[in-house]
Amino acid sequence: MAKFQTPRGTRDFLPEEMIKRQHVLQKVRSVFEKWGFDPIETPAFEEWELLSAKSGGGQEIKNEIYYFKDKGDRELGLRFDLTVPLARIIATNPNLPKPFRRYHIGPVWRYDRPGAGRYREFWQCDVDIVGAPAGEAEALCIAVACDALQRLGFDDFTVRVSNRKIVEAFLLSIGIKKDRVVDALRSIDKAEKIGEDGVGRELKEKKFSTEEIKKITSFVKSKTLSEVKNLAGKNDLGKEGVKELEDVFSCIEPFGIMDKVKFDVSLVRGLEYYTGPVFEIASEKHKSSIGGGGRYDNLIETFGGPPTKAVGISLGVERIIEIMDENQMFSMPKTATKIYIAPVSESVKADVVKVAKELIELGVSTEFDLMNRSISKQLDYANAKGIPFVLVLGQKEFDSRKAKMRDMKTGEEKDIHLGSLEEVKKLLK
Amino acid sequence: MAKFQTPRGTRDFLPEEMIKRQHVLQKVRSVFEKWGFDPIETPAFEEWELLSAKSGGGQEIKNEIYYFKDKGDRELGLRFDLTVPLARIIATNPNLPKPFRRYHIGPVWRYDRPGAGRYREFWQCDVDIVGAPAGEAEALCIAVACDALQRLGFDDFTVRVSNRKIVEAFLLSIGIKKDRVVDALRSIDKAEKIGEDGVGRELKEKKFSTEEIKKITSFVKSKTLSEVKNLAGKNDLGKEGVKELEDVFSCIEPFGIMDKVKFDVSLVRGLEYYTGPVFEIASEKHKSSIGGGGRYDNLIETFGGPPTKAVGISLGVERIIEIMDENQMFSMPKTATKIYIAPVSESVKADVVKVAKELIELGVSTEFDLMNRSISKQLDYANAKGIPFVLVLGQKEFDSRKAKMRDMKTGEEKDIHLGSLEEVKKLLK
Repeated sequence: MAKFQTPRGTRDFLPEEMIKRQHVLQKVRSVFEKWGFDPIETPAFEEWELLSAKSGGGQEIKNEIYYFKDKGDRELGLRFDLTVPLARIIATNPNLPKPFRRYHIGPVWRYDRPGAGRYREFWQCDVDIVGAPAGEAEALCIAVACDALQRLGFDDFTVRVSNRKIVEAFLLSIGIKKDRVVDALRSIDKAEKIGEDGVGRELKEKKFSTEEIKKITSFVKSKTLSEVKNLAGKNDLGKEGVKELEDVFSCIEPFGIMDKVKFDVSLVRGLEYYTGPVFEIASEKHKSSIGGGGRYDNLIETFGGPPTKAVGISLGVERIIEIMDENQMFSMPKTATKIYIAPVSESVKADVVKVAKELIELGVSTEFDLMNRSISKQLDYANAKGIPFVLVLGQKEFDSRKAKMRDMKTGEEKDIHLGSLEEVKKLLK
Repeated sequence: MAKFQTPRGTRDFLPEEMIKRQHVLQKVRSVFEKWGFDPIETPAFEEWELLSAKSGGGQEIKNEIYYFKDKGDRELGLRFDLTVPLARIIATNPNLPKPFRRYHIGPVWRYDRPGAGRYREFWQCDVDIVGAPAGEAEALCIAVACDALQRLGFDDFTVRVSNRKIVEAFLLSIGIKKDRVVDALRSIDKAEKIGEDGVGRELKEKKFSTEEIKKITSFVKSKTLSEVKNLAGKNDLGKEGVKELEDVFSCIEPFGIMDKVKFDVSLVRGLEYYTGPVFEIASEKHKSSIGGGGRYDNLIETFGGPPTKAVGISLGVERIIEIMDENQMFSMPKTATKIYIAPVSESVKADVVKVAKELIELGVSTEFDLMNRSISKQLDYANAKGIPFVLVLGQKEFDSRKAKMRDMKTGEEKDIHLGSLEEVKKLLK
């Protein structure tokens, strides 16, 4: 029979990699909780109608989602983010105390073209604040994400911040028609990737006038909020957009992370989704995004709830691990097991189990032989698994209550007493 | 627009419930690691051919699985357990050091009829040992499961243990034809639920002879392994089955859990799956199973791997939580947040953020106002969320560096100093 693989675009995580993943997830979870966010979880799949609602059920989203029917012919799909399920919960539970601050860590699925380092199943770590206006809520989301990254050992990252309202207001103020605004936004959003000239070329292909292109590319070059304020702050939408960002930046101040945050007018992000400030986090060494988010004040209403303000930020687990791996930011062992106990013969097996059990009760991760193998085979095994310490126990050791514990890295042996395993525990640190 | 629900048979976990779930998962994870098991994770979906392989691709399994095709027309299905993905990994990675001891905690999906307390998405916590023969490996799996349950506060549970080989050997020895053995096994397996008389009635409907039924129901009544040895230990299969169980029980001895383990000849479990010892854990107060497992020495070969011995045990998260809830075994707060800081006015907001940040850096889960609400509204909110402590801070407090921290349960107020938040942290414990 042919051997089976994981489905296309997915993969397994064996212990060595999984231990790194758990380290990342555990750190992030602990940071999220310290900042006053509580956990939720939702099903892997949702009603198809929900998943497609925000895009008007369009074909574009259908191509990106794992879609299926259950046996009752109900249309379902694997969730493609953690925001849609949150918005559903808020829409159907109007009595949740507001602001509702939740975190959600879990897998999402997208039917992407699986390229290098891109997977169809990947994990997101999200914090969202539902029911609070723009300003401090944005600052808090950004601060939490920064803290999580810093605790993981990242220091060279930047959070770019913008507000779609500003760009939209500017485009309208120079006479771009409403139905052409999205076209222009899509090109502006690429500025980081294709540069200002690239944006100009794209706009030309899209038949914007030379005059319009000149104004737009010059606008995209703006470096500060006050420059932009002059260009885009003339109509109400622009004033609102500028005010929101001013609030966000002034609220970020006391969090002590101003050096991590940068205004970037070209940042647009998800067009159907965000309604106000948006952010994107990138590691300086790596161009690609490791997280991002923004304000989506319309989404909950789209799902049948009352109009509800909401903002959130999401960290991409796979990208974070990839960067940490590349930069040797992990110092994890290959196994969670701390010590391996090798019985010299089957006759001492029951005594070995008792020693192991005592260590386990002390909280020490302990393994022992299950195969009646020779000592040399057992040492090979402990070595292959990367278990850092080995204790060889025979009748002599049990009679004298004394044994030698070997450090598998250095080869060094330490005398231990079987009657004081608390001491052994200390030696393992 | 209509409000959306979770798909049929699934549900959300809001913070209060999710905090309990995390408590359970974290305890179980920590016990699994202490007993020398390392984590793995696998994709939510697998190739359909893999999922259906062990049942010969039959219709029965198709009805129980969420089946779908990807856009490349490949047949996929959501995994229905964590053992099949493990067997796939072993089959495709023959060089993993053996015994391969892994744990896996995650959701599985079954298209079950969703009854009371039954869900189509539910979580399992599995430990498995691949590459070790029957005996000690079984004992270890049982010991780990017992330890996990005990650490969660369970004491009134029993692990029933049997071996399908014994029952099969007995049936063959009394002249039941090979193709009728499975029919008889299915009825015997129900002994715990429908009693000995019920088994008799079922066998009669299945057209077993009165003589056969008499022998079978009498066999099912056997209470000890030595009784069974006389009845079923005559042929090789029976001898092997008895020997395996004798080994398992003698290996359990040094783990100190003999009082939790009971031989029960009527236990059969998954017919296509298990090849040797099987076990099932039930809480005495609750008839239904909270976990189980057994030996499956054929599965890895079925998936194209070399013949490989394997045994494992699985705990059901939902059932565990249900029982813990019913018996008030949780003493969790409703929120992870420990303290809420209420600014008296917007003007002290930046200072409040700084105090919050300092507490967060000390590891204290802290929330503060994001809405510029009145003090009374803020207290209502902290109360609704179940945050145990509140600190009200105004200009006066910042000037004097002194404040009062209120215990929201007792109403008691404690004097604290804003310059020594380490002290505040201690008070929160």
